Amino acid sequence: MSIRIGILGYGNLGRGVECAVKQNDDMELVAVFTRRNPQDVPILTAGVPVYPVDEVAGHQSEIDVLILCGGSATDLPVQTPEYVKYFNVVDSFDTHAKIPQHFARVDEAAVEAGKVAVISVGWDPGMFSLNRVYANAILPDGQDYTFWGRGVSQGHSDAIRRIAGVADARQYTVPVQESLDAVRNGETPALTTRQKHTRECFVVAKEGADCGRIEQEIKQMPNYFADYDTTVHFISQEELNEQHSGIPHGGFVIRNGCTGWEREHRHVVEYRLKLDSNPEFTACVLAAYARAAYRMNQEGGSGCKTVLDIPPAYLCRQSGDELRRDML
Amino acid sequence: MSIRIGILGYGNLGRGVECAVKQNDDMELVAVFTRRNPQDVPILTAGVPVYPVDEVAGHQSEIDVLILCGGSATDLPVQTPEYVKYFNVVDSFDTHAKIPQHFARVDEAAVEAGKVAVISVGWDPGMFSLNRVYANAILPDGQDYTFWGRGVSQGHSDAIRRIAGVADARQYTVPVQESLDAVRNGETPALTTRQKHTRECFVVAKEGADCGRIEQEIKQMPNYFADYDTTVHFISQEELNEQHSGIPHGGFVIRNGCTGWEREHRHVVEYRLKLDSNPEFTACVLAAYARAAYRMNQEGGSGCKTVLDIPPAYLCRQSGDELRRDML
Repeated sequence: MSIRIGILGYGNLGRGVECAVKQNDDMELVAVFTRRNPQDVPILTAGVPVYPVDEVAGHQSEIDVLILCGGSATDLPVQTPEYVKYFNVVDSFDTHAKIPQHFARVDEAAVEAGKVAVISVGWDPGMFSLNRVYANAILPDGQDYTFWGRGVSQGHSDAIRRIAGVADARQYTVPVQESLDAVRNGETPALTTRQKHTRECFVVAKEGADCGRIEQEIKQMPNYFADYDTTVHFISQEELNEQHSGIPHGGFVIRNGCTGWEREHRHVVEYRLKLDSNPEFTACVLAAYARAAYRMNQEGGSGCKTVLDIPPAYLCRQSGDELRRDML
Repeated sequence: MSIRIGILGYGNLGRGVECAVKQNDDMELVAVFTRRNPQDVPILTAGVPVYPVDEVAGHQSEIDVLILCGGSATDLPVQTPEYVKYFNVVDSFDTHAKIPQHFARVDEAAVEAGKVAVISVGWDPGMFSLNRVYANAILPDGQDYTFWGRGVSQGHSDAIRRIAGVADARQYTVPVQESLDAVRNGETPALTTRQKHTRECFVVAKEGADCGRIEQEIKQMPNYFADYDTTVHFISQEELNEQHSGIPHGGFVIRNGCTGWEREHRHVVEYRLKLDSNPEFTACVLAAYARAAYRMNQEGGSGCKTVLDIPPAYLCRQSGDELRRDML
């Protein structure tokens, strides 16, 4: 019998989950819920209904895990504690500083409902967190590094689009190659913000806009750009559409540590992702943890979990015997 | 209160565990057990007793986790099911093909004793297995690659030493750079054994030995060398001691997969280890899983586990709150 999946929110992430469910033959998509008019939301999977989001509670008996594909700013803080009353849920809440608060609220509701919620699933937080935790547990005497990119930052692209005279924009976060090489080589430099990443911006200016002013406003923007070496390229909307429509991302989690009685040996632990599509990869992680949420709840588990709380075997279709034989 | 660790077997791995325990301030080394005469086993930690191995059962009340540092060929198949009768244990059993059988025997004894055993801990099996499992669960439509090295293979070094006329030898396993580059770049080539690794041998010949014959015997040795491009360098014992006394190792676990409705996006997931000391890194992984074994047993758990069964948070000194705040 398949794990019956529902998707709430059908943007890039929701569509990615739909694709991921198709790849997992123990899962079945049974419904999509949207805030838009369902007739305006054509999905990819033939025969699967699209419902208005306010009908979701009525479908409790049809869905094993509801995957929440809303945003972290305003959607998930409300949705995850609400929908865990009815379903096992998985979300990709990624506002690092607010995870403890989100966890506490979701945990209370999940325990009360006897459901499992897995929050902050994806690659950072998510797979990057796992790799930080494993490497820190193994090498207590060491130094952590995270480099992001080369990849599109939606937040930084949005910030550029809010500048007067900007029609469209795409921003790439890029690791500083020299710093990355040093760290991958086992060195443990102290790196400033500027030494870790550069920011590369492709901007479409409105007709008649002052490009010099736009460039200055970008480069001086506090938090987003001021602490980085930033380059700005003005291009046409056509070029932006043709060359920069993808959503690639990725990065590196590296821990360099010492062992030995006199700290005489050095070790480099590196995890790297190179992703053509940030939302589709995130969606794949959500699908794997939906399987875990389902299993934990089947075994009587409830409450809020993160990737740190879940045994790796729970993500897999294979039995423990098969995993030990084929994967260990 | 510290987790009280015992070490059984004091070779390179046992000494590595001793160093790892020193780095973990929630752990304390309380005893070392050896098959040798304890007076001939000077350990690094002041004030810690060394006992004959046949006295180990008498120290049950002093030790929370016994870390078994014997070999997989003959020691661990006997030791792990035996000592789990008295202690929570962790081992580094690494004969992949015999893991299911080892698991079954250890599980039976561990359940009977109400203790936790964690088997096959290290980096392969161990961290590499974890990364294979996570990447497979996330990207069901993909291809796995494992490259080992550049690093010393003890088994291959021993095989060379058994050839007539060889005084000493050290063998390095080396990934084929061209294949590694292709895979890291997202390609999914079908690679033969020869296309994945080369073997580099440093050999000290006995006086008067026929180096040409030794080289041929190495290169034609079935399983060990015949399927690889092998290079043989004859060097002096002094040079071997000076240049090749370390035990470095490492490697890469890579999964390349597709996502999207039409498989239109590609992703590369890569885990890499670069280790100055294979036994010391393995020992660090053993120490982290000793913490997990202790905690699981404290919570009433028993039976045989592998790295695939253990939530990552159990490896950490930090509480769940701290991990969510600082590491997620």
